Amino acid sequence: MTTPGTSELLARRYATLGEHSPLFYREPLELVSGEGVWLTDAQGRTYLDGYNNVPHVGHANPVVADAVHRQLRTLNLHTRYLNHLVVDYAEALLAAFDDRLDRLFLVNSGSEANELALRVARQHTGSTGVLVSDFSYHGNTTSLAELTTGLTVHEPLGGHVRTLRIPDATGLTETAARDLCVRALGEVDAAIASLQEAGHGVSAALFDPLFSTEGLLTPPDGYIEGLARRVRAAGGLVVADEVQSGFGRLGDAMWGHELFDLSPELVTLGKPMGNGHPVGGVVTTAELLDEFGRRNMYFNTFAGSPVSSAAGLAVLEVMEHERLLPRAHETGAYIASRLHGLAAESPLVASVRGRGLFFGIDLVHDDGAPAAGTARALTEKMREKGVLISKIGRDDNVLKMRPPMVIEQAQAEILVDRLAESLAELA
Amino acid sequence: MTTPGTSELLARRYATLGEHSPLFYREPLELVSGEGVWLTDAQGRTYLDGYNNVPHVGHANPVVADAVHRQLRTLNLHTRYLNHLVVDYAEALLAAFDDRLDRLFLVNSGSEANELALRVARQHTGSTGVLVSDFSYHGNTTSLAELTTGLTVHEPLGGHVRTLRIPDATGLTETAARDLCVRALGEVDAAIASLQEAGHGVSAALFDPLFSTEGLLTPPDGYIEGLARRVRAAGGLVVADEVQSGFGRLGDAMWGHELFDLSPELVTLGKPMGNGHPVGGVVTTAELLDEFGRRNMYFNTFAGSPVSSAAGLAVLEVMEHERLLPRAHETGAYIASRLHGLAAESPLVASVRGRGLFFGIDLVHDDGAPAAGTARALTEKMREKGVLISKIGRDDNVLKMRPPMVIEQAQAEILVDRLAESLAELA
Repeated sequence: MTTPGTSELLARRYATLGEHSPLFYREPLELVSGEGVWLTDAQGRTYLDGYNNVPHVGHANPVVADAVHRQLRTLNLHTRYLNHLVVDYAEALLAAFDDRLDRLFLVNSGSEANELALRVARQHTGSTGVLVSDFSYHGNTTSLAELTTGLTVHEPLGGHVRTLRIPDATGLTETAARDLCVRALGEVDAAIASLQEAGHGVSAALFDPLFSTEGLLTPPDGYIEGLARRVRAAGGLVVADEVQSGFGRLGDAMWGHELFDLSPELVTLGKPMGNGHPVGGVVTTAELLDEFGRRNMYFNTFAGSPVSSAAGLAVLEVMEHERLLPRAHETGAYIASRLHGLAAESPLVASVRGRGLFFGIDLVHDDGAPAAGTARALTEKMREKGVLISKIGRDDNVLKMRPPMVIEQAQAEILVDRLAESLAELA
Repeated sequence: MTTPGTSELLARRYATLGEHSPLFYREPLELVSGEGVWLTDAQGRTYLDGYNNVPHVGHANPVVADAVHRQLRTLNLHTRYLNHLVVDYAEALLAAFDDRLDRLFLVNSGSEANELALRVARQHTGSTGVLVSDFSYHGNTTSLAELTTGLTVHEPLGGHVRTLRIPDATGLTETAARDLCVRALGEVDAAIASLQEAGHGVSAALFDPLFSTEGLLTPPDGYIEGLARRVRAAGGLVVADEVQSGFGRLGDAMWGHELFDLSPELVTLGKPMGNGHPVGGVVTTAELLDEFGRRNMYFNTFAGSPVSSAAGLAVLEVMEHERLLPRAHETGAYIASRLHGLAAESPLVASVRGRGLFFGIDLVHDDGAPAAGTARALTEKMREKGVLISKIGRDDNVLKMRPPMVIEQAQAEILVDRLAESLAELA
């Protein structure tokens, strides 16, 4: 599958970026162009993109590209001079949050957003303790590496970090879910007590409301609310990492935390925010932002520039104009129903997870053991069939499908048809 | 000076970004467009930009804007798929470093770059101790805040951090400079011993080779080399923060560390790299990059995208095509000679610092005390005269001039003429 041209490019990449910079697929895929949900490789072959969420409003979206270009030809500067675009963008973005969350820090990435949110929380609480899921990833800085469990890092888990096994109620009866919730909240109590006894206190609970790295979990009713209550009672703040779950990905809500009866103190944003232009953000309360601003000279050179703001505004405009949130709900519902059909037919599929346009397909062997090898083989087979997907989860056995939000019904059909074929061929 | 429109914009900004997000000038300046070294405000008034280094190849540079646009209309994706642009860019950038520094991590900002460089250094050395200047700033993450002394942060200095008073040989005799160097290297020995006694060891010395936050210092001959030797003898690495001093800003060298007989193990890049597009980088050795890659799954969603790479490539191309490095030397020499003339005339100017197109003008009162108020008044007066500059230094009394690299002789004349007038009016 790899041509001489691609092999040569790979060798040049190894000689500059090294051999460990991660690449998808047994034979890396060289992509050269994209449009909407379609991608084209160096050999001219076309793929349906069932994986990438960063190109939220579609690959090579002309509205975003032209807005960025227009502004690049006009002015691009930092926020120590006034410019209306960053204010326009902040207003448009904050309008999508509840009234309490009315202030914004702009940054350049999800890592910078989570880094800043934890800095704000530590300063506000005077505590350092952090609660995170026991299989999660929130970014690549040192202090985020110290709480990373969902991928390999050299840093040991920080002494100020406690990990929680997030309960998953998928497929449970109501009673079993309730029992699970009680048990899991007991573990939260124990984790908080442990942080307090060690003198760290609780600064924050940080979690992705979709638990996507974990494989897309659905906690039992009341768990997240109970977690938040306990964290706040211990003096800590709730940080919702919406880098993956935000911007309408879930179809029936703009933000993942809206799945719960929960208003976080801090919400972090990234990936889809600028359709690939590096933009991230922290949305918070006036009290927390002002307190942090009084105590720190916080400045971020690139963040909030007119160009970054133009990119963010264009994404919101396209979302509105093309009805991407309701469409994610509609197209997502279609895909979900087809996937549930596949689950009923294929013994390989234990459950279908996710919401809106974010799907996890839990693959297991006959004995119920996680089928990581099958998941890997399926992503390769889907590539052969011209569809790009990936996998997640602590056992690496959950297929991950998360197409650009502009996916249409006919394209969704291709996505599920190819998956059905691949499952049948590997069964 | 502030119009109703600007006041209203300011109020809207306060209501979204808060009142502490820093702004230049007594009355904030609302900028709406730029071209080359020129900026235009909301009232249509034009300013010569004598301050901004991020628009390295000029405001609204069409080559960069069009390259970004073309690539945005083609493809923008992460590096887990192959794409030739990131490799082309890595090769072009690494060609500007000595042979030992032949590997690149791409990130989104200078903060991410310094954060990653220190992560690499800590993992390689197994130590945590860091040496920094006692008036410096390297970024806004938590672990960088813990070593920040050059602006206000709430975090106390980390227990693993030792600060060095960087010696400044400006205006000293050769003998006095030599004595100063011996004394300052003694302080380095003491700092290293203190880190070792406390059990932190030495992971890195991190410094801006221009010492720009400090007010642009010129260490005595041999100090930096002696510092590097001592750090390495203690098992640590040398990190050159080239966020401000890199990309030919100094006129006679592409990188600030080339001022010294020094090959750092890690070089961090940011600000001018993408002419305002959020790009940063860490250049290092194959050994360090591979070691880190083996130990960590390091991935950065936005970094190294085809669009970021296209922006970086376009900056290098414009630099080459417009001879910006030799021009920085030539135009910089002209400005420097004029500034030395002003220093001879004006008792306010104690010394002229800097190199290439980065200048510091040290303002003092008659009794030699730092003249911070005068520096502030001068930046306001320069604004009235249509020239933007700023100030730096531990006493806030050093005028900072650092125009886009495309500044021409006639524009340089305006910059210095207006400064001469302003100095005369405030004398």
